[in-house]
Amino acid sequence: MHTKGFITMGNCCDRPKDTYIRVSLPAVCFVWQIAMVVLFGVFIRYNEESDAHWPEYKKKQNITSDAENDFYYRYPSFQDVHVMIFVGFGFLMTFLKRYSFGGVGFNFLIAAFGLQWALLMQGWFHSLDYNTGKIYIGIENLINADFCCAGCLIAYGALLGKVSPVQLLVVTLFGITLFAVEEYIILNLLHCRDAGGSMVIHAFGGYYGLAISWVLYRQNLNQSKHLQGSVYHSDVFAMIGTLFLWMFWPSFNSAIANHGDGQHRAAINTYVALASSVLTAVAVSSLSHRTGKLDMVHIQNATLAGGVAMGASAEFMITPYGALIVGFCCGIISTFGFVVVTPFLERKLKLQDTCGIHNLHAVPGMLGGFISAIVAAAATESVYSKEGLVSTLGLEGKFANRSPGTQGGYQAAGTCVAIAFGLVGGAIVGFILKIPIWGDPADDNCFDDEVYWEVPEDEETIHPVLEYNNHMTHKQTESNFTLEQS
Amino acid sequence: MHTKGFITMGNCCDRPKDTYIRVSLPAVCFVWQIAMVVLFGVFIRYNEESDAHWPEYKKKQNITSDAENDFYYRYPSFQDVHVMIFVGFGFLMTFLKRYSFGGVGFNFLIAAFGLQWALLMQGWFHSLDYNTGKIYIGIENLINADFCCAGCLIAYGALLGKVSPVQLLVVTLFGITLFAVEEYIILNLLHCRDAGGSMVIHAFGGYYGLAISWVLYRQNLNQSKHLQGSVYHSDVFAMIGTLFLWMFWPSFNSAIANHGDGQHRAAINTYVALASSVLTAVAVSSLSHRTGKLDMVHIQNATLAGGVAMGASAEFMITPYGALIVGFCCGIISTFGFVVVTPFLERKLKLQDTCGIHNLHAVPGMLGGFISAIVAAAATESVYSKEGLVSTLGLEGKFANRSPGTQGGYQAAGTCVAIAFGLVGGAIVGFILKIPIWGDPADDNCFDDEVYWEVPEDEETIHPVLEYNNHMTHKQTESNFTLEQS
Amino acid sequence: MHTKGFITMGNCCDRPKDTYIRVSLPAVCFVWQIAMVVLFGVFIRYNEESDAHWPEYKKKQNITSDAENDFYYRYPSFQDVHVMIFVGFGFLMTFLKRYSFGGVGFNFLIAAFGLQWALLMQGWFHSLDYNTGKIYIGIENLINADFCCAGCLIAYGALLGKVSPVQLLVVTLFGITLFAVEEYIILNLLHCRDAGGSMVIHAFGGYYGLAISWVLYRQNLNQSKHLQGSVYHSDVFAMIGTLFLWMFWPSFNSAIANHGDGQHRAAINTYVALASSVLTAVAVSSLSHRTGKLDMVHIQNATLAGGVAMGASAEFMITPYGALIVGFCCGIISTFGFVVVTPFLERKLKLQDTCGIHNLHAVPGMLGGFISAIVAAAATESVYSKEGLVSTLGLEGKFANRSPGTQGGYQAAGTCVAIAFGLVGGAIVGFILKIPIWGDPADDNCFDDEVYWEVPEDEETIHPVLEYNNHMTHKQTESNFTLEQS
Repeated sequence: MHTKGFITMGNCCDRPKDTYIRVSLPAVCFVWQIAMVVLFGVFIRYNEESDAHWPEYKKKQNITSDAENDFYYRYPSFQDVHVMIFVGFGFLMTFLKRYSFGGVGFNFLIAAFGLQWALLMQGWFHSLDYNTGKIYIGIENLINADFCCAGCLIAYGALLGKVSPVQLLVVTLFGITLFAVEEYIILNLLHCRDAGGSMVIHAFGGYYGLAISWVLYRQNLNQSKHLQGSVYHSDVFAMIGTLFLWMFWPSFNSAIANHGDGQHRAAINTYVALASSVLTAVAVSSLSHRTGKLDMVHIQNATLAGGVAMGASAEFMITPYGALIVGFCCGIISTFGFVVVTPFLERKLKLQDTCGIHNLHAVPGMLGGFISAIVAAAATESVYSKEGLVSTLGLEGKFANRSPGTQGGYQAAGTCVAIAFGLVGGAIVGFILKIPIWGDPADDNCFDDEVYWEVPEDEETIHPVLEYNNHMTHKQTESNFTLEQS
Repeated sequence: MHTKGFITMGNCCDRPKDTYIRVSLPAVCFVWQIAMVVLFGVFIRYNEESDAHWPEYKKKQNITSDAENDFYYRYPSFQDVHVMIFVGFGFLMTFLKRYSFGGVGFNFLIAAFGLQWALLMQGWFHSLDYNTGKIYIGIENLINADFCCAGCLIAYGALLGKVSPVQLLVVTLFGITLFAVEEYIILNLLHCRDAGGSMVIHAFGGYYGLAISWVLYRQNLNQSKHLQGSVYHSDVFAMIGTLFLWMFWPSFNSAIANHGDGQHRAAINTYVALASSVLTAVAVSSLSHRTGKLDMVHIQNATLAGGVAMGASAEFMITPYGALIVGFCCGIISTFGFVVVTPFLERKLKLQDTCGIHNLHAVPGMLGGFISAIVAAAATESVYSKEGLVSTLGLEGKFANRSPGTQGGYQAAGTCVAIAFGLVGGAIVGFILKIPIWGDPADDNCFDDEVYWEVPEDEETIHPVLEYNNHMTHKQTESNFTLEQS
Repeated sequence: MHTKGFITMGNCCDRPKDTYIRVSLPAVCFVWQIAMVVLFGVFIRYNEESDAHWPEYKKKQNITSDAENDFYYRYPSFQDVHVMIFVGFGFLMTFLKRYSFGGVGFNFLIAAFGLQWALLMQGWFHSLDYNTGKIYIGIENLINADFCCAGCLIAYGALLGKVSPVQLLVVTLFGITLFAVEEYIILNLLHCRDAGGSMVIHAFGGYYGLAISWVLYRQNLNQSKHLQGSVYHSDVFAMIGTLFLWMFWPSFNSAIANHGDGQHRAAINTYVALASSVLTAVAVSSLSHRTGKLDMVHIQNATLAGGVAMGASAEFMITPYGALIVGFCCGIISTFGFVVVTPFLERKLKLQDTCGIHNLHAVPGMLGGFISAIVAAAATESVYSKEGLVSTLGLEGKFANRSPGTQGGYQAAGTCVAIAFGLVGGAIVGFILKIPIWGDPADDNCFDDEVYWEVPEDEETIHPVLEYNNHMTHKQTESNFTLEQS
């Protein structure tokens, strides 16, 4: 029934969908992984803090303690970010009743490939030593690689249940590439500050996913409507994702901030912004139901909006109450998005966004970028101290003459670049994914793990059937007996 | 059916319960969150370690390395505590078959509001600068705010399934307030040592929740009996909570201990005490069943008792075997409490304690306080060293003349203060919660997420119904066929 | 039906199995825990970094900062390892449809006892002060105790569902003892390097479990076949375990590595090796299914193989692409093992390996040992620097004259020692477990929590039955009605 030839010859539009991926998935995994090995062999080396020459380096640099190795400043935050990428994003996407394997499993696959490709792409743009032609990596590169994956995982949120794992790997390959380029433009050329990635991660990733999903619009997706919801326990699983994202977001936003007060302040700002989002998300969720009942979708997602929006200004002296206000507004906007905007987008713009990334990432990310523009423009030497202003806004080297106001303008410009990259890149990738060779599911097969996973027989269908059979046979017997009697 | 006027006019005693919270919940969330923004604006600022002036401060104080910023000493412990508050307490309360949303979701809401209010309340008592009138916050304040929430979350354990989210926010508002006052009395006035909060967190929180629950006694709660138990998978979810609490308890007890040996010793003591609790909890659980089967309730709760009881003396030189003995006894006492005391309290004292916080928090917390009194009284200079005795027992400043014996007396007194605050405060809050405006559920509606959550239709009711319908139609047809033949 | 006398008198071979453990389990827990208290009292003390004399020690040693306390170098990694032991291993073993309580619960029990016994056993071999006769413990001892438990938990993987908790405690007692001895031989006498425990933990633990399982072969295990699989949600629970193991493996392999570059490099190597394993595991899993569907068993297990195999050479300058190659190969080998070798072992060697530890621990651990031999033998001064070579390979003191090549030979020898200890020790322990006093389940009772746990009545059997009864009564009534009409 599944033949390989059939796939490549198939008529794009009205052929029955073929989800045979036994050739394409292993081929892509093997070939790309071998490419990674070769490229790592050519380019990637340990940096001076992770190389065995560290004792020599320490002496040369007059470093007195191993505690000065960046590893000890950043490893705890790295591990928190790592948990967010794999458990946070992964379990957040287990909420569908029959797509939990795909949610957490393909998330795993995307991130595992993505982080390797990101080490290379980001390395070429940021850490390449032009003398040796090598990329020297340390703990900060690992954090950045995880960040880079986050962009693609956000995009996956819009596509959840509607694409094949092969398509997801394509989304990742292009997503990481686009990410590295836009990040280079925003952070290096425009010299924006974006410690927590409101623009480079969330705005980019959100619009990238939305654009892909828009191109891949499925007219008859309602044929899978019965699977496009949660069940009781899948919603509890999703809360694992939500909570790990929520708890570790302060680490996300502070992971690559400046040592000392930078990391410290970024963590505080994010902590309070997130707390504020929870209350307003609950309030709007309750308001939007006839008798005030809460909706799990809002609790799972909109409570995180404050963290997204604090990303770009996490390091800034936004003050704790400033952070509270950011969280306050984004909790409202995000919940409102789930209640009103997502259904509107689906009806009017033909945009199917499974996880509502529009409300959790795209819009709060964009807002975060613009908020950072305002906060940067308002920075003064009295608030930051002379030295603090330079290090927090990064006004050093060839940017030493830039004023806070100008920096604010660049922050806004950077946000627009991220969105543009997301939209244009996503549209192109969407068209690539329309080529009928990727084994994507049919409209009536979406949101179903059966398509790409060996799914175990289920308790509900084993246990009770036996019981009911017995039950019925018994009743039937009675009935027949009655019959005979009659 | 749900009208707002009805709520405010309703007759307290025999009206049918109305769980309409569409006005009260959003109102409380919005108003209180706006109050937080205003109060944060007036009072909360970054401290010198999280302020952009840190580079200047470093120079002034001759600090040579950013690694001396308290952030690096405490952030990993903070994140562990954070996980305990949101995932630990949250998932521990998912064990009920149909109250997992409420367990983890309202836990989230309580903690998100509580930590903001705690930053203010604790700030006024502990970190207020009388010159500027500001509260300067850093990482230690965040840990303390999380600790403060723990008290209210413990209280929630007794109320689980029987109150509305609005009531829980009221419990939190008063709980945090009471906490800050008793903490001020115990830690500042009586100058007790309580690194892991046996008294200020667990004894207080436990008796606070029990007193509220006692006042809110529901005579006809057995009308919800069918929902007051677990199902297989909800018990597994609860184990997520148990394990994260258990694993990170060493961080909880060491998070605000003294730098260096203090944190190190607190972690070791807690680690071994907890291990010991597991074995005795298993032993008593097995003993209490006819054929030795284990009960998940004991494994989920009593295994943690050692951590609770080690709280107050975590920093002390209790020795590893001393810690083992504490865990040994508390594992037994706590499991015994679940088997014997909780049913007794419900029958005789009319005290309904959903999660058994009496056995996990109230009693072990109280014991922990008294244990710390004994250990403090037994402290000698030879064991602690002169400097170590001063720093560990905090016998500095105006307490420099206090002997270890006297300190022991104060530790015992502090424990009594915590219990008194819990009982009296809880009783008062309980009466406030009896005002019939909070939308609490009726006796036959407890332990049911349907009341406050949009609960998805269930797999079990979707899939099988279809199958059985087909099945039945088929059988029925046969039967009818037989019928016709007859 | 359950009488104590019966157990001790029972005929070994053809008596019906008796799973009464109400005497044996509490007795073992109490007696062993009391023994722990006594032995801790005699032997265990705080070391100089966790003792209250630390301020004095600091002065004496000219240590200027508390940040030099080993606690701050290792505590974050310790907590990650702790999560792997309790949540990682625990939840990985919840995959069976009706053995999740036993999977996560007995894992908890084993580790809680194991870590105490490990502190003593490893202390006697590694940290005993011959002058005072005391074992002085600090954070590194806690990490090593957790590592030691890992060996026994791996062995549990092969026995999952087929043994009683009393048997598991016996497995742990002997397992920890054997571990401490083989570790002493491998690390101290042979002076092997094994930061992440490929040989001492994984190869030993894997073969230990396999040998026990081989001795305990159950001819009629297919009588429990209906329970020896997963259900949808139990597979999602298992992914929690998989992901926490996967994410924190870099911490596992770097936890006790050298300060500075050692820990840094170990984390990087493990991070990339694991990523590579994911892609090849997915590829082979897809290849092994008719239409390319993925198998959750492979995703849950084989994705971790790279971390196991990187253990012994994590600290070495294996280069990032070297690590990628290790992960690449082990992902393939491990998945292939699940597809082909495990069924073969069961059929031909009568070896029943519930979790497939052969493929995840035994073989990758062995390979990791041999890989470390090759990498060590290839070490040169130009790559490591003079000082780096000495510290990384540990060529100090009486081993100063050992060449890298010789070190490589010893690494290989160490691997063989670990395997030999596992096989011989496991066989002996297996025969001890055959004594019919341990309350193990009958062949038709395996993989069933009912045997050792009070299992709640289930949703599936409560809710729907009511509904279907109503349903059926209704239909039946109709049918009868028709009948009467006829």
